[in-house]
Amino acid sequence: MSHRVHNFNPGPAALPLPVLEQVQRELIDFQGTGMSILEASHRGKAYEAVHFQAIADLKALVGAGEEWKVLFMGGGASAQFALAPMNLIPQGGFAQYVTTGSWSEAALKEAKKLGDARELYTSGPDHKHVPKSGQVAVDPKAAYVHYTSNNTIYGTEYDGTPEFGHTGNGPGHVPLIADMSSDILSRPIELDRHAVIYAGAQKNLGPSGVAVVWIHQSALERCRGDVPQIWSYRKFAEKDSLLNTPPCFPIYIVGLVARYLLEAGGLTWAKKRNDEKARILYNAIDDSAGFYRGHAEPGSRSQMNVTFRLPTPELEDLFAKQSTAAGLIGLKGHRSVGGMRASIYNAVPLESVQALVGFMQQFRGEHG
Amino acid sequence: MSHRVHNFNPGPAALPLPVLEQVQRELIDFQGTGMSILEASHRGKAYEAVHFQAIADLKALVGAGEEWKVLFMGGGASAQFALAPMNLIPQGGFAQYVTTGSWSEAALKEAKKLGDARELYTSGPDHKHVPKSGQVAVDPKAAYVHYTSNNTIYGTEYDGTPEFGHTGNGPGHVPLIADMSSDILSRPIELDRHAVIYAGAQKNLGPSGVAVVWIHQSALERCRGDVPQIWSYRKFAEKDSLLNTPPCFPIYIVGLVARYLLEAGGLTWAKKRNDEKARILYNAIDDSAGFYRGHAEPGSRSQMNVTFRLPTPELEDLFAKQSTAAGLIGLKGHRSVGGMRASIYNAVPLESVQALVGFMQQFRGEHG
Repeated sequence: MSHRVHNFNPGPAALPLPVLEQVQRELIDFQGTGMSILEASHRGKAYEAVHFQAIADLKALVGAGEEWKVLFMGGGASAQFALAPMNLIPQGGFAQYVTTGSWSEAALKEAKKLGDARELYTSGPDHKHVPKSGQVAVDPKAAYVHYTSNNTIYGTEYDGTPEFGHTGNGPGHVPLIADMSSDILSRPIELDRHAVIYAGAQKNLGPSGVAVVWIHQSALERCRGDVPQIWSYRKFAEKDSLLNTPPCFPIYIVGLVARYLLEAGGLTWAKKRNDEKARILYNAIDDSAGFYRGHAEPGSRSQMNVTFRLPTPELEDLFAKQSTAAGLIGLKGHRSVGGMRASIYNAVPLESVQALVGFMQQFRGEHG
Repeated sequence: MSHRVHNFNPGPAALPLPVLEQVQRELIDFQGTGMSILEASHRGKAYEAVHFQAIADLKALVGAGEEWKVLFMGGGASAQFALAPMNLIPQGGFAQYVTTGSWSEAALKEAKKLGDARELYTSGPDHKHVPKSGQVAVDPKAAYVHYTSNNTIYGTEYDGTPEFGHTGNGPGHVPLIADMSSDILSRPIELDRHAVIYAGAQKNLGPSGVAVVWIHQSALERCRGDVPQIWSYRKFAEKDSLLNTPPCFPIYIVGLVARYLLEAGGLTWAKKRNDEKARILYNAIDDSAGFYRGHAEPGSRSQMNVTFRLPTPELEDLFAKQSTAAGLIGLKGHRSVGGMRASIYNAVPLESVQALVGFMQQFRGEHG
């Protein structure tokens, strides 16, 4: 039995133990092929089965039909910050961005290098909330509107698909693009209200090294033709992400995670579990008589990244140090927000959250 | 003891067994951290040690000094086809390409989408050779000249650094850019005659999912400032490839492979071993009284990818089928050349090549 800590890392993050055990078991001889999956040709039968099963399972989990393609691309979600405008802002067109944290700001900044990208709304500078339904209205002439469903650093999240006005995949509607890196597959999603959903794998999907893109046929049709092929959504869709050698091992693990999730009960199961984890953690904050203070406004709280402050920076340092010593890893918040952050993605078990809540109560008893 | 085949895959390809064994051993609990390296934060001590050790070892192997940076980038070598021109062809400038196979043709085609890229020389359409010393002269006004050191598909390779005229890193010289994806670290290289060397990892360096770039300070200084940061060599160099979440696990394995190679004796050791493997395989072709015919001209033969034909397509099909059944995997040639191809990268042991030679002799005995 391996020694395992409670892993609250913001990404790369915890993976399901049964997935890690399977990877370890078949690492040197993959399913009787006499070689590791790390050594298998991406044009061979063994890897192709892994690749297409991962695509099928990632479609099944979100209920994607024939009009959707799943792509595997390199460079992380940060590459998508550049790929979305490169492919989808036409000559003379413009895109609109809803910025609710560091990553959507980074997406906007990168997009500005590639086309006419405009800020539609910002919750800055402190990013304690996401906009309410109807508060933001996209320009019907925009090439697309981009939002970040969950803000890893600030710990805010939309309660479902945001209402920005004329979004949709039909004629006369504005395509909706979502960066779901930090809450993908954590709850059911309204896929068909989106045109493109992308996510770096290293939070809920698998290890770092691949981004997964769900792209609707209508968005593929809008893609520009003058994009280098390695950055073309359309080329990747045509070749099922086998245009060049893909990041095979990260995709293999994403596939194992997707299968694990499907067999456990899919996104409804994931949401129920994640809601329970978030509930007991926010309760520990709210029931602390002000010792712990959440960063996010209550209506905008993330179910994935729970950010909170303590009475003083000294106590926050002590909390970080003592929690690490107690085997609770990765709780120090991002420097731009300060305080603490518990990332409780799909693969973080309830027992880890319970251990954290116990530690919080004990710490408050000693220092409150 | 795991069942292991003889792996002649062109990439992804064989990895050293001791590396695979170490990966398997520490997969669930990485060096006592209580988590997998797949779950470790890229900002944490455990991963950072892996990352910077890999950089140091990849510099040590090629004898790179202070003026060199090693970068880890996503998207494979195919992304480098676009990144080199994007970063290094200035407004109004042009680059020159020596095309000696499918991959250098692909590099040129992609570069043309991003700037003024011109073919300087081609060995096409059959690509049986690489140009001889002094046969190609770069325009001294070119922003750079790009070549492919080893042609995976056709099985040709330069015998060391090619002489294209005014190349070098000093003022008045043309920077030399090499795609060394399929022979990197297989032999000593004249690093300081190059400005940029890049390689997809999945042949000699590790698994797929990362490209390694060695870039000289003079090239970093020439980089354009208007490149999106995720595609900027300069930004990657400034942040030691930790600008965003890197492909941690592929980098970890690249680091293990680099360390394994350093401890075994470095590039001189690798060359000696690879020369011996190539020698016995080309001998088996040359001593077959014409039954096996090499594709590459003798002066341009690759030490990494040995391409050969049999008397008829029917015999080639039979060879592919029977060799696979005998546990010799990946010998079918690329469809653009036909015939057979044995990829004998660093991690392919001499015993595998001996087994192949034995099979070739037996097959010829039965069908010659």
